[in-house]
Amino acid sequence: MAKMKAAIFVQPGRIVLDEKPIPDVGPLDALMRVTTTTICGTDVHILKGEYPVAKGLTIGHEPVGVIEKLGSAVSGFREGQRVIAGAITPSGWSNACLCGACSQDGAGTKHGWKPMGGWKFGNTIDGCQAEYVLVPDAMANLAPVPDDLTDEQVLMCPDIMSTGFGGAERAGIRIGDTVAVFAQGPIGLCATAGAKLSGATTVIGVDRLSNRLEIARRMGADLVVDSSVKDPIDEIMRLTDGRGVDVAIEALGTQSTFEACLRVLRPGGTLSSLGVYSSDLTIPLGAFAAGLGDHKIVTTLCPGGKERMRRLMAVIQAGRVDLSPMVTHRFKLDDIEQAYELFGHQREGVLKVAITP
Amino acid sequence: MAKMKAAIFVQPGRIVLDEKPIPDVGPLDALMRVTTTTICGTDVHILKGEYPVAKGLTIGHEPVGVIEKLGSAVSGFREGQRVIAGAITPSGWSNACLCGACSQDGAGTKHGWKPMGGWKFGNTIDGCQAEYVLVPDAMANLAPVPDDLTDEQVLMCPDIMSTGFGGAERAGIRIGDTVAVFAQGPIGLCATAGAKLSGATTVIGVDRLSNRLEIARRMGADLVVDSSVKDPIDEIMRLTDGRGVDVAIEALGTQSTFEACLRVLRPGGTLSSLGVYSSDLTIPLGAFAAGLGDHKIVTTLCPGGKERMRRLMAVIQAGRVDLSPMVTHRFKLDDIEQAYELFGHQREGVLKVAITP
Amino acid sequence: MAKMKAAIFVQPGRIVLDEKPIPDVGPLDALMRVTTTTICGTDVHILKGEYPVAKGLTIGHEPVGVIEKLGSAVSGFREGQRVIAGAITPSGWSNACLCGACSQDGAGTKHGWKPMGGWKFGNTIDGCQAEYVLVPDAMANLAPVPDDLTDEQVLMCPDIMSTGFGGAERAGIRIGDTVAVFAQGPIGLCATAGAKLSGATTVIGVDRLSNRLEIARRMGADLVVDSSVKDPIDEIMRLTDGRGVDVAIEALGTQSTFEACLRVLRPGGTLSSLGVYSSDLTIPLGAFAAGLGDHKIVTTLCPGGKERMRRLMAVIQAGRVDLSPMVTHRFKLDDIEQAYELFGHQREGVLKVAITP
Amino acid sequence: MAKMKAAIFVQPGRIVLDEKPIPDVGPLDALMRVTTTTICGTDVHILKGEYPVAKGLTIGHEPVGVIEKLGSAVSGFREGQRVIAGAITPSGWSNACLCGACSQDGAGTKHGWKPMGGWKFGNTIDGCQAEYVLVPDAMANLAPVPDDLTDEQVLMCPDIMSTGFGGAERAGIRIGDTVAVFAQGPIGLCATAGAKLSGATTVIGVDRLSNRLEIARRMGADLVVDSSVKDPIDEIMRLTDGRGVDVAIEALGTQSTFEACLRVLRPGGTLSSLGVYSSDLTIPLGAFAAGLGDHKIVTTLCPGGKERMRRLMAVIQAGRVDLSPMVTHRFKLDDIEQAYELFGHQREGVLKVAITP
Repeated sequence: MAKMKAAIFVQPGRIVLDEKPIPDVGPLDALMRVTTTTICGTDVHILKGEYPVAKGLTIGHEPVGVIEKLGSAVSGFREGQRVIAGAITPSGWSNACLCGACSQDGAGTKHGWKPMGGWKFGNTIDGCQAEYVLVPDAMANLAPVPDDLTDEQVLMCPDIMSTGFGGAERAGIRIGDTVAVFAQGPIGLCATAGAKLSGATTVIGVDRLSNRLEIARRMGADLVVDSSVKDPIDEIMRLTDGRGVDVAIEALGTQSTFEACLRVLRPGGTLSSLGVYSSDLTIPLGAFAAGLGDHKIVTTLCPGGKERMRRLMAVIQAGRVDLSPMVTHRFKLDDIEQAYELFGHQREGVLKVAITP
Repeated sequence: MAKMKAAIFVQPGRIVLDEKPIPDVGPLDALMRVTTTTICGTDVHILKGEYPVAKGLTIGHEPVGVIEKLGSAVSGFREGQRVIAGAITPSGWSNACLCGACSQDGAGTKHGWKPMGGWKFGNTIDGCQAEYVLVPDAMANLAPVPDDLTDEQVLMCPDIMSTGFGGAERAGIRIGDTVAVFAQGPIGLCATAGAKLSGATTVIGVDRLSNRLEIARRMGADLVVDSSVKDPIDEIMRLTDGRGVDVAIEALGTQSTFEACLRVLRPGGTLSSLGVYSSDLTIPLGAFAAGLGDHKIVTTLCPGGKERMRRLMAVIQAGRVDLSPMVTHRFKLDDIEQAYELFGHQREGVLKVAITP
Repeated sequence: MAKMKAAIFVQPGRIVLDEKPIPDVGPLDALMRVTTTTICGTDVHILKGEYPVAKGLTIGHEPVGVIEKLGSAVSGFREGQRVIAGAITPSGWSNACLCGACSQDGAGTKHGWKPMGGWKFGNTIDGCQAEYVLVPDAMANLAPVPDDLTDEQVLMCPDIMSTGFGGAERAGIRIGDTVAVFAQGPIGLCATAGAKLSGATTVIGVDRLSNRLEIARRMGADLVVDSSVKDPIDEIMRLTDGRGVDVAIEALGTQSTFEACLRVLRPGGTLSSLGVYSSDLTIPLGAFAAGLGDHKIVTTLCPGGKERMRRLMAVIQAGRVDLSPMVTHRFKLDDIEQAYELFGHQREGVLKVAITP
Repeated sequence: MAKMKAAIFVQPGRIVLDEKPIPDVGPLDALMRVTTTTICGTDVHILKGEYPVAKGLTIGHEPVGVIEKLGSAVSGFREGQRVIAGAITPSGWSNACLCGACSQDGAGTKHGWKPMGGWKFGNTIDGCQAEYVLVPDAMANLAPVPDDLTDEQVLMCPDIMSTGFGGAERAGIRIGDTVAVFAQGPIGLCATAGAKLSGATTVIGVDRLSNRLEIARRMGADLVVDSSVKDPIDEIMRLTDGRGVDVAIEALGTQSTFEACLRVLRPGGTLSSLGVYSSDLTIPLGAFAAGLGDHKIVTTLCPGGKERMRRLMAVIQAGRVDLSPMVTHRFKLDDIEQAYELFGHQREGVLKVAITP
């Protein structure tokens, strides 16, 4: 049985590069040879044991690669084709999918719904920080990459871009809106770009790191607030002349940013939450107008599927956004443990790393 | 100066019937002679000092009556006409109103937005537990009552029905949905009716009082859960075969019901919150899928304005819902202090009282 | 090779019952033994040669039956299970499906979109007026029938009910709306029921046949207009006191009903079109307010897929609607040519026929 | 009685500058001293007698100016303030307005709805091609102009920009969409800009005039099609690789552009119609997929009101779009007849003229 290298979760604190068999290809699957992938903040949560996964699982959910082998029931693709797959790989045929909620895909469960059920790579099945990855329900998930786009140009599509844009889209941004985005890490930066693309007239980026605020401007922030220097709530209320924002996007996953979103929101506004929280959240009574403010809070798990990927790649191809400045470091798969070391500690101003098997 | 009787907030713990001048009519106003009104749970909050209003204010925000006098700039109505006005009286001309957020009307404020700004009666201006009430922005707020409807038939339109239905409408209920409504007080009962009318296939009413559950069935609940006997979360998960509900409506304003709503919600579901909370809320991490469940939380303040009232009266006129069983007690305005006594302590199975000046 | 009986399109004017091989089961398919099916108006168009299909094709797209055999890649179902499949059988994995437009499924085409591509049964693949039918993409399309529902109770789900309800749903009906439904054939009757379930306050059914108007009342019409006696436009304007309707649903597929819909629509209203037209349509300038009336025209092809079927069966199970009065005649599959004769000529007040192999 | 100059409709073929009394100010009105205005294509229809208005009416519906006098019941503004008002001046208090359909405002009518009822200036009341104009329902319609914006920078807000953007907004454009805009006159150019701002990834501008196509590129068109040289349907199908567009915007008001929109639309796509038609329209059967294509057709009348104006000016202030290249010619009010001569015949590559009293 042929072997491949893969980054495997061993125990909290240890993800190691090891050998594993190249997986067998079931009738609905495709085997992808990975050419570029990356590490996500969620992978660091897994590394730290904050998000539990099975021991021995291959980590990673952002694959760019080439089709190595197609399952017997898969049509419409050819081996050798350059493709990506989303971090979320909906089946297409679950009740959740057929209801438009692909990220909550519960293919194979009793009801066809499962919280976060669409997230399989590096969560419930082997992921893509490896030489090969098996893509489930391949016909729903393989998205051909246009020839004129490089691996790095599409590397953000599977997760970061889809999530960040999703947060902007679910917020129902309208032309003329003012939008604040709390935290300008990779997802917040994509939310900033997505808010701008959705017609927001004034996008306010908030972060504590000046290099991130600088990239925030390149991604479309009209105004930035350095929360290490100024209270962002006061500052945003000042910038909006006391009115507050139409939409506030949370992109960090903390009580403090969640709460700040509510506090800067105008009556009738929408809080779009993207962060992965690690404890209960508190909704402050006053900021919530005691429940009478016509507020909305929406949460979004990264949208996946090949049509989503096609659309995001079209955005890049049309030059609407250039996310390549977000790739700050590059590693060989052989050196992925070093990449985790750097990325996990957020050293050297790292935003995203490119990993090439 | 002519005088009238009015229920006046004196201090926490005291609302008394006293005399006040009949108000002058400004150019945009209408003076309504009140023929029937009622007491709302919010009025009891005011009585208890839990919701602060100015001393000397006339309480009440649910007027049925007759136009006594029209402001000089008001056209399209005639004196003597039988009308209602919503609890929320949008100006029509504020930025919030022109943006579709009439309940957050900020007419006269810097930005045209104000949290709960549309709620004026018995909050920021004199209310309608009186012989006369001045209706602001009359052209936007006076809604003629069809001849074939009695005062009691339309008495729920200004607040209870508009709020309860609003909670169902904002939840985006679709044909085939399962909806749970937590608490079957007047607003919860209207939410139950509204959910049924919106196409919900299975409406589950929850309360601790059996008489309310009985009325819940008449209002459209397919199933009821007595939460004094069974844990409603377990019971709803059992009734939905483990799937959870598509929409959960909170109609009480407590942490426990808010949290229960989240716990019975399927991934991708919507929590529609109607309650007036009196303390911070906690969002439990697990029920919220750490922010990754594609959940929505929407809050709704009673929609107002004459077109809203017209629609609600049309629903009653067409026989779609009969809310008159909710009027359980009747009082003269002269006896309103007794009515507060009864209603404030929820004695004798009271749901709503009719007050007639 | 085992044989089965099937109603086969021979040439315009001729659909005959003949023998065909029982089809082979591909990896993604399921073979269903049909227990009940029906004839649709569209099948009559096919019979007359007005809608072209391949010679030799088995007709029919409304199957109720039992799983005979599952494809090798199909999981989550068991042989012997009682199921239905929608008239439209989305793949789940096409770009159209993943974009929420399952009826325009273009599985296998270049772009993943194809006009009406989700309609396969009796159109592009063999249909279900036969002893057996092959269900494509079975995991997306097989919907288990609750034990307490009979075949006839769910016989309308695959097409008529899904289409009629879909027309009401796509129109965005709100509580308090007035809705006119032009033509009360099977689809119009379901649109009437769907409009009522969606919260319409006044549903006006229009037809030329008094027996259909009578059933329209049972399906939820508050008012009916016999267009053989009165001009329906005048009558609806009279009934709405000159205001017009919020939503007009076209359920016949003719210029005259389409145009009448526009003429009774209030400014800002929605025309929801369900009919299958057979010639170009004219939009009258005046009724269209020269393009300045903020009107919407939406068209809907029957939504399919197992989640849709599940929801529709839930509606029936909950007793929200009873469509069984629509089955007016019953035939054995052996007598299907007679059934076509009766149904094609709309004899004996036929609405829908049940065909049992 | 003080007099002012005004462009008055005398009879088909004749609009002349003449003297009129400066109007009296009613309680809800404001008198605006016009500092800049313009001529609309609709005004040319009026001039030609194609759209009937009363003889003696002052024409024009795009005012920029200064508040000269406020009605007695108007608050929140001050005389001397620099403002614009939309071409559509909703009352705010009609049933249509309170239902979100401000352009169909029927203030004062029986039902509160009237087709195009929000369009009053130069249609049902005196317009703004004059030294002064009376703004009805001033509190809903006066929008203060930010100090840093010139008259010409905001001159498109009242009509052209609001209409063009409205067509993009009502189409529900999503990030990743391909949008075709047929005709690149002033409204089409704004629709092009609006589509781009709404997240369209590929905007295709179509026109017969190369100078317009050049401006289309500056407004955001990614691709342009010169329909005097190529068949735009063939060309768009080629550019989209046979897929068609997600949204097609009609901005001319002819059968040929309306039909072309349908022919390039993908299944499930939306035709957003902005043109003012002058004859019945034909929907071709095939392009409409016989009514089974899940298509939508939406029409939009220019959204008005002060909040709309505020938002559009915010877009300009933020530098999202610069419409000043559209002002190609400038005239004094005294020379407005020459301006009509030039604009009416579309001489000298005119797009919009600025008229200054």
